[in-house]
Amino acid sequence: MTNAIEILGFVAATLTTAAFLPQVYQTWRTKNAQSLSLYMLLIFFVGVLSWLVYGVLINSMPVIVANVVTAILTFMLLFFKYTYKN
Amino acid sequence: MTNAIEILGFVAATLTTAAFLPQVYQTWRTKNAQSLSLYMLLIFFVGVLSWLVYGVLINSMPVIVANVVTAILTFMLLFFKYTYKN
Repeated sequence: MTNAIEILGFVAATLTTAAFLPQVYQTWRTKNAQSLSLYMLLIFFVGVLSWLVYGVLINSMPVIVANVVTAILTFMLLFFKYTYKN
Repeated sequence: MTNAIEILGFVAATLTTAAFLPQVYQTWRTKNAQSLSLYMLLIFFVGVLSWLVYGVLINSMPVIVANVVTAILTFMLLFFKYTYKN
């Protein structure tokens, strides 16, 4: 049963990480970041970095990998939010 | 040391959950969900529900509470995305 639970955790991490890919693509394609909240992106970015440090401290590769990817995607959205300025 | 690590995990969960509050507020205030990606919201919502089931299975209250709140906030964004139709 533990194996099934771990797989579920891996699926959950993959989904909540991969979810940002369509957002990055849409924002890049439309050059429109207007309705993205800057505060959401900043708070979420700090939260993801916290999860990354947490993952290193508990030595959990899934937590580390998921949050490295999410940190990169969130940073791209922050960059777009700054660049597109609308 | 374990206690400090758990606190970090709690802080990370709180930040990545609370981050959606400014997004919900901005979207509600501006009635503009245009640059929010529908696919991001849908995939993220399924991911958060997966984390919720995972939290129940491993009996982890922080994972359960964080993902119940995130699921509600993400559902609100989905509702706004549908309602504001721009």
